Amino acid sequence: MKIICSDLEGVFIPEIWVNVAEKTGINDLRLTTREISDYDVLMAKRLEVLDKHGLKLKDITDVIATIKPLDGALEALNWIRERAQIIILSDTFEEFARPLMKKLNYPALLCHSLVIDNEGKIADYKLRQANQKKQAVKAFKGLNYNVIAFGDSYNDTAMLKEADYGFFFRPPDNVVKEFPQFDVTHTYDEIKAKLNSLI
Amino acid sequence: MKIICSDLEGVFIPEIWVNVAEKTGINDLRLTTREISDYDVLMAKRLEVLDKHGLKLKDITDVIATIKPLDGALEALNWIRERAQIIILSDTFEEFARPLMKKLNYPALLCHSLVIDNEGKIADYKLRQANQKKQAVKAFKGLNYNVIAFGDSYNDTAMLKEADYGFFFRPPDNVVKEFPQFDVTHTYDEIKAKLNSLI
Repeated sequence: MKIICSDLEGVFIPEIWVNVAEKTGINDLRLTTREISDYDVLMAKRLEVLDKHGLKLKDITDVIATIKPLDGALEALNWIRERAQIIILSDTFEEFARPLMKKLNYPALLCHSLVIDNEGKIADYKLRQANQKKQAVKAFKGLNYNVIAFGDSYNDTAMLKEADYGFFFRPPDNVVKEFPQFDVTHTYDEIKAKLNSLI
Repeated sequence: MKIICSDLEGVFIPEIWVNVAEKTGINDLRLTTREISDYDVLMAKRLEVLDKHGLKLKDITDVIATIKPLDGALEALNWIRERAQIIILSDTFEEFARPLMKKLNYPALLCHSLVIDNEGKIADYKLRQANQKKQAVKAFKGLNYNVIAFGDSYNDTAMLKEADYGFFFRPPDNVVKEFPQFDVTHTYDEIKAKLNSLI
């Protein structure tokens, strides 16, 4: 039996932090792992920035609730869910993802979580597991699934490698160059064509 | 982080084979593991009966498409999906479940599959894995999830035992007697109350 594992941001929804930066006008929230390569340092910085601006979880999720899925994403995801099981593997946080998952009709999502204090402030974050995307693919293989995976960037490559078949969706050029073994798709129709031949 | 694993038949939808027997008027399809305890013998008998009546997969799924989720199931499942991740673990077959999963807005489902021949006949079935419900709970624990599980009968008890917290939903009396360690719920409101205290 086949199961599909896919990334979330850049595949079905826009990048959350970039959008939060745009919509709040707080430029410091634009920082990504390109500027600060250590994820823990980056997240500490983001939480510090939120705190400095007095932003609580609710303020951020209100902003996130105004973000729309990518054009065609809902239709593509519905198409997949009518034909196969798909589990979304994301390095985002459950609390941030929720308003967007609602717009995608609540597909299953395995990701991380935030620690919220009594005043509703984001006190900390909890990565559920290192290499969680790869580990999840491994777990599904252990459940006798043949795993098809797709994602858009670096943090997906371990998952694509671990999958029985992995491919990119709209990856940056440098990632394509570094991982030439993975096919590249650019449109949801290309994803559908690929899945049609696989499931 | 928490994840919920639940059974399907008897929890969110009625028993599929019993309903197929009723709607087709084929009494031999009423047989369950109560009459024929060996599952493989039972399934061979069911496939033989379908073949005898000239029923193909499409005939059966057309019948299954007329089955409705249990009263209140969709609302309860939506309530859960707005608050947490739920993965349905069922010993049914993907092809049979699909028309019903549509009515439940396609929650994630891990189950078994059928082998369909060129003429659309059900040639065979494939159990994805022995003890698949228990194995799935184990896998989610390995992904650092705290697992809450619920189901209605014998084939759920290994999953309930493996989970961090397991409870019954509308179980038969003999199952309750044999497994007194699991709390019993009877209504979706009771499931909600339980989950509210756990997630």
